[in-house]
Amino acid sequence: MPELRKDPITGRWVIIATDRAKRPSDFVRDKVQIRGSGFCPFCAGNETKTPPEIMAYRNDGSRPNTPGWSLRVVPNKFPALGIEGSLNRQGEGLYDKMHGIGAHEVIIETPDHQQTLATLPVRKVEDVLWAYRDRIQDLKKDKRFRYILIFKNHGEAAGASLEHTHSQLIALPVVPMHVLEEVGGSREYYNYKERCIFCDINRQETEKGVRLISENQDFLAVCPFAPRFPFETWIIPKVHESAFEESQKHEFENLAVMLKDMLQRLDKVLDYPAYNYIVHTSPIQETSNDYYHWHMEIMPKLTKVAGFEWGTGFFINPTPPEESAHFLREAAIEAAAQS
Amino acid sequence: MPELRKDPITGRWVIIATDRAKRPSDFVRDKVQIRGSGFCPFCAGNETKTPPEIMAYRNDGSRPNTPGWSLRVVPNKFPALGIEGSLNRQGEGLYDKMHGIGAHEVIIETPDHQQTLATLPVRKVEDVLWAYRDRIQDLKKDKRFRYILIFKNHGEAAGASLEHTHSQLIALPVVPMHVLEEVGGSREYYNYKERCIFCDINRQETEKGVRLISENQDFLAVCPFAPRFPFETWIIPKVHESAFEESQKHEFENLAVMLKDMLQRLDKVLDYPAYNYIVHTSPIQETSNDYYHWHMEIMPKLTKVAGFEWGTGFFINPTPPEESAHFLREAAIEAAAQS
Repeated sequence: MPELRKDPITGRWVIIATDRAKRPSDFVRDKVQIRGSGFCPFCAGNETKTPPEIMAYRNDGSRPNTPGWSLRVVPNKFPALGIEGSLNRQGEGLYDKMHGIGAHEVIIETPDHQQTLATLPVRKVEDVLWAYRDRIQDLKKDKRFRYILIFKNHGEAAGASLEHTHSQLIALPVVPMHVLEEVGGSREYYNYKERCIFCDINRQETEKGVRLISENQDFLAVCPFAPRFPFETWIIPKVHESAFEESQKHEFENLAVMLKDMLQRLDKVLDYPAYNYIVHTSPIQETSNDYYHWHMEIMPKLTKVAGFEWGTGFFINPTPPEESAHFLREAAIEAAAQS
Repeated sequence: MPELRKDPITGRWVIIATDRAKRPSDFVRDKVQIRGSGFCPFCAGNETKTPPEIMAYRNDGSRPNTPGWSLRVVPNKFPALGIEGSLNRQGEGLYDKMHGIGAHEVIIETPDHQQTLATLPVRKVEDVLWAYRDRIQDLKKDKRFRYILIFKNHGEAAGASLEHTHSQLIALPVVPMHVLEEVGGSREYYNYKERCIFCDINRQETEKGVRLISENQDFLAVCPFAPRFPFETWIIPKVHESAFEESQKHEFENLAVMLKDMLQRLDKVLDYPAYNYIVHTSPIQETSNDYYHWHMEIMPKLTKVAGFEWGTGFFINPTPPEESAHFLREAAIEAAAQS
């Protein structure tokens, strides 16, 4: 019998198919492979083919927009939003609109076209996280912005238009819908229980273990109770912290270890799937709070999305999270033995 | 300068790209074509290859599960939910779950494999709408259900697994997230204004005309102010009615005309795109109300969905609805001249 499960944070119900649960090999899809053919504007030596860099990590004293960097942040060449101007909020009859003001940046994670975030050394993955933090801290000073979205599209099927490994940042003058839902749901739970719902989830998942994939000193990796997608994976800080960018050094270190480990496991279990991940953190104007707990959500792109989910917010997930977690947990043991 | 627009019903903000607005020919995609090769369980003569029919329209007195039908409703052979049993709502620590009870049915719109809903005679399109209504009325008697979703996936890119034209129905013991958002938003607006927001939208769109595609005696077709997708099209009844299934005969007649017309225009302007449509109607337990207004939303599948939209509820639409409406309006004139 299939099961209907409710996401405790947003209240979203999801159908979890239990009878004919899909295993990793049941998903037909294209393996993400680096072809490396053709010109790439993100490769070392092509710095002039992107807009001038906003920031870069350079250990050799090299000049901006020249080779020598290990990580580079540049404006998106085709930004969804414009950085200059005022919001100019206005009505149009019963409608509301404003200028599309915002920042749209690209974090080029390495100069090496052949790497992915799963194959980069842990220290370099940590640099990517520091770059997220540095850019968030800088953009938070701009009083026009309400939310900063950090996300990664890996593989064409997940929406990546360039294969050279990169993340994106969008700073927005509004808070996105799902963030409002998550923060609102967490606030409601807090008002009722006087506890953070994510802290409660951490406790229950650690105790039960069936959806736990891995843990280290600072982080848990779990398959959530009511996932929208097969093999959806969340990385949650163990200690309550509402904002990603307020993390401590040891936390960035341990997050890098955990993130690389999870991406390696997904590659192993699902044979190099396309995926998206998103940093879920508090809106800028409520950075420090007791009710919301930042985390990362990783969503492998395995299922053909029947467009009706868009219109309904209603998801059918063919793989129970307990099974996803089992496969990912087992992969861990092998990975550890290899390294 | 791109524009941020707020959907007045749900409060969702959307980025509308205005600078490099995409025209119909800018979208690269596969044309939906009927191949008709191989065995099809929905074709006349193959009635025994589906589960036994729930209902059929037969004018020739033919027996159930034999040829002679013009429309057939059967249970989905691979249902997402089970029809037998009790909900058995229960907790699991801080989580909530219940048995996956529900109905999952397929409406086979014609025995003719070569037709689409856009090419069927208007009278047959009307039959499809009557079938939706008949099934809703029947399933509403089941007290376990809270919502009945009617939707259509057309073309493989939109999630259709069989090309023979069909719609689907899912009866659920819960109300889907987006329905809750729409109904909640409409209720809030009503509480504040004492007017239905959709009735207000109809007035403003009729007066302005820039997003209006077409109208007939009972329906308007518009591109909404803050669409998530290029060429997203809504069909809205002119007179307030909260539930699809309560429509009058002349309304089903005029909806059939409007729906066929819109699908023909989309085929013409976008060269036979894959699409989804969804009937947005009131939850079963609040069928008759003053604040929510049923309508249909048609979403052509034109853009590659960067998976991050899933995680954020944040959409970037490369075509302003005023331009989509313009193209669809112009197509109308030609279509009318041809028929």
